[in-house]
Amino acid sequence: MTPEDLKPLIRTIPDFPKPGILFRDVTTLMGDARGFAGAVELLAEKVSACGGEAIAGIEARGFIFGAAVAARLGLGFIPVRKPGKLPVPVLAIDYALEYGTDTLEVDPDAVGEGRRVVLMDDLLATGGTALAAAELLRRAGGDVREALFLVDLPELGGAARLREAGIAVEALIDFPGH
Amino acid sequence: MTPEDLKPLIRTIPDFPKPGILFRDVTTLMGDARGFAGAVELLAEKVSACGGEAIAGIEARGFIFGAAVAARLGLGFIPVRKPGKLPVPVLAIDYALEYGTDTLEVDPDAVGEGRRVVLMDDLLATGGTALAAAELLRRAGGDVREALFLVDLPELGGAARLREAGIAVEALIDFPGH
Repeated sequence: MTPEDLKPLIRTIPDFPKPGILFRDVTTLMGDARGFAGAVELLAEKVSACGGEAIAGIEARGFIFGAAVAARLGLGFIPVRKPGKLPVPVLAIDYALEYGTDTLEVDPDAVGEGRRVVLMDDLLATGGTALAAAELLRRAGGDVREALFLVDLPELGGAARLREAGIAVEALIDFPGH
Repeated sequence: MTPEDLKPLIRTIPDFPKPGILFRDVTTLMGDARGFAGAVELLAEKVSACGGEAIAGIEARGFIFGAAVAARLGLGFIPVRKPGKLPVPVLAIDYALEYGTDTLEVDPDAVGEGRRVVLMDDLLATGGTALAAAELLRRAGGDVREALFLVDLPELGGAARLREAGIAVEALIDFPGH
C-alpha cells in the first residue's frame, strides 16, 4: 500500500466542528482492515528510519496510530494525556487554543532521560498541540527530534512551527488547501 | 512472554482516584518495549482464537491495546468514543456510574451489519462501561460475543455481568482481591 492508496479512505466532513472547516476524518481509514494495517506499516518504516526508541502518542487519536506503530516495532509507548488521567505526579504544560487554553500531562518516569522519543498524532493542523507535547516530553528528559503524522494540512503551518522548534516533521498524506 | 511475566510491569497506586482504591496502572507496562509487544501478542492470539473480524476499543486506554492488536492482526479498528468527538451522526448510549451517568458514542457505519466485533479495554472492573459499549455496538449492527481485557479485577463482578449479557470474557491478568 502507498499513501495514495490510503488517501481515499479518509472521509471529509464539511462544517465540523464549525462552519467553514473541512474535517478530515481518519476513523474510516482505521476501520478499513487493509488501510489501517497499511498505514501502520508505512508509519513504522518512518520511525525505523529515524532511529526512534519509543513512541509518544497524543490523547486520543494519537493513541491509536502511535500504539499500533510501537507494538509493530517492539518499542515502548508513552501516552501524552489530558489532565487528571494519570495516577502519579505528572509534568504538565498549558498551551493556547484558538479560544482558551488546554493542558497536556505526562508521567516523567515513562519518558526516560535522553531516550529518543518520536511524537505521533493522527493529524497536524496548526501544530499547537504537537508543539506543546514535544516541549513537555523534552522537559521530562526525552530527546524529541521527530514528529510523525498520518495527515498534514500544510497551509495551517504546523510543520513550519515544529521545524522552528528543531523537530523534523513527516506525514504520510497531505491535503493542500485543507 | 507469559501473563506472569507481564504482571510485575503493572504499577499499583494506592488511593487513586480516591482513598481505599488500589489503581492498577498499565502505563508502566506499555512503556516497557518487551512488555508492550508481549501483551499485544498474547491479546492478538486470543482475538484470533475467537474469530474476530474487527476490534472495538473504548476511549482512551482501550484505544492503545485495541489498535495495536487490530494492526497486528490486519483487522479494522472501531473507536468507541466519549461524547462529541465523532464528526458524523452517531449512535449513543447513556449508562450509570457510581455517581451520575456517562455516555459513549459510535459511528454506526464503522461497525457494519453482522460483523464479528471483539470489544477491548485495558481493565475490567465493575463492567458498566464495557457492558454499555457492547450494547451500543450491538445496536449499531455488530455481532459482539467476546470482550478482551489486559487486566480483570474479578471481585468487582464485571466478567459475571458481561457473561449474563451473552459475552464471553477473557483477560491476560487478574488481581484477586483487587
